[in-house]
Amino acid sequence: MQLGRVVGNVVLSMQNDTLTGVKLLLVQPISTSREPLGRVIVAADSVGAGVGEDVFFVRGKEASFPFYPTEVPADAGIVGIVDHWTIG
Amino acid sequence: MQLGRVVGNVVLSMQNDTLTGVKLLLVQPISTSREPLGRVIVAADSVGAGVGEDVFFVRGKEASFPFYPTEVPADAGIVGIVDHWTIG
Amino acid sequence: MQLGRVVGNVVLSMQNDTLTGVKLLLVQPISTSREPLGRVIVAADSVGAGVGEDVFFVRGKEASFPFYPTEVPADAGIVGIVDHWTIG
Amino acid sequence: MQLGRVVGNVVLSMQNDTLTGVKLLLVQPISTSREPLGRVIVAADSVGAGVGEDVFFVRGKEASFPFYPTEVPADAGIVGIVDHWTIG
Amino acid sequence: MQLGRVVGNVVLSMQNDTLTGVKLLLVQPISTSREPLGRVIVAADSVGAGVGEDVFFVRGKEASFPFYPTEVPADAGIVGIVDHWTIG
Repeated sequence: MQLGRVVGNVVLSMQNDTLTGVKLLLVQPISTSREPLGRVIVAADSVGAGVGEDVFFVRGKEASFPFYPTEVPADAGIVGIVDHWTIG
Repeated sequence: MQLGRVVGNVVLSMQNDTLTGVKLLLVQPISTSREPLGRVIVAADSVGAGVGEDVFFVRGKEASFPFYPTEVPADAGIVGIVDHWTIG
Repeated sequence: MQLGRVVGNVVLSMQNDTLTGVKLLLVQPISTSREPLGRVIVAADSVGAGVGEDVFFVRGKEASFPFYPTEVPADAGIVGIVDHWTIG
Repeated sequence: MQLGRVVGNVVLSMQNDTLTGVKLLLVQPISTSREPLGRVIVAADSVGAGVGEDVFFVRGKEASFPFYPTEVPADAGIVGIVDHWTIG
Repeated sequence: MQLGRVVGNVVLSMQNDTLTGVKLLLVQPISTSREPLGRVIVAADSVGAGVGEDVFFVRGKEASFPFYPTEVPADAGIVGIVDHWTIG
């Protein structure tokens, strides 16, 4: 899993039925020192995250678990809002 | 998930039975500022996308969900057509 | 999914039982302009591809779908032979 | 699978229900000569690892197996504490 | 799938129950010209491979198939010992 920051959202004009009602957010992966790491991704939100918040996201089929039993075709998902982290 | 633009299509002369009737499109992944990101991939289309459209695609087994119960051997799939996105 | 060209084959002296009878080919991933992209991989063949042919392959668990119900431990599979592709 | 060292932990203020009670640790992947390899990741712990310990972790859906039957949305998990390794 | 050479082994002092009895080997991925490719990984062995042997390994959930019905949390597995390969 990775740390990230919510930087925006995506609106679709047409979509697979299983994506109906799923909120899609733009997330910038960040390092533990809060520097951007790689490209912005699109993630399905299951915890009510908003722009500017630090989040915790997963990649892969695991991203669809929170929407079970709907098999949402998501490969990245926000599964937690971060309070803080500690190094060392 | 990632943003991309449809740039072409692929025609097969022979294929695994489960791919019969599946439309295969060439997709250039793009950044939120619409710059190309990495290599063009081949994605299975489940939303009727066409060349020149901005799309939203997934990677991994999730790409086969829209074709359920057929177990389509796809590892990338277009699951939405993008209306717009907002940063910040 | 990605485009590739079959460049050789692999012969095993010992293998997991579920791989018995599975043809293993060396595939060079290629770009839409037919340039090599990254390392040669080993892929399970389910369409009768041969050396020199342009193929269409998947990565991940999806590569084992054509061999169902046998759970072949394959993470790359050739699922189509390419006739042609069109850009733009 | 990869070798890593536990370097910290993450605390969430809000989370998907299936993550309740799951300990989240920051892990620095390391080489066999103990050099850092790439970015620090967040991993779910199922073996009681602590800061400073050398661990063995998996990526992907496999990371959720130790929490079965709960479908924990984890894509990285610590599944062993390393005693030692031998090269050659 | 990829070609690799077994270069060592890993011993755990504590582990998830499902890993009990699973042999863990250090594998250096190699190219078809036998040059090292990227980092050494840890793979679960299901074919009795030993140090110095050329092997064939998979990544992802597929690595756990040989251990079925135990859901071994492995994301890399040696599934064959290579006799030889042919290019062209």
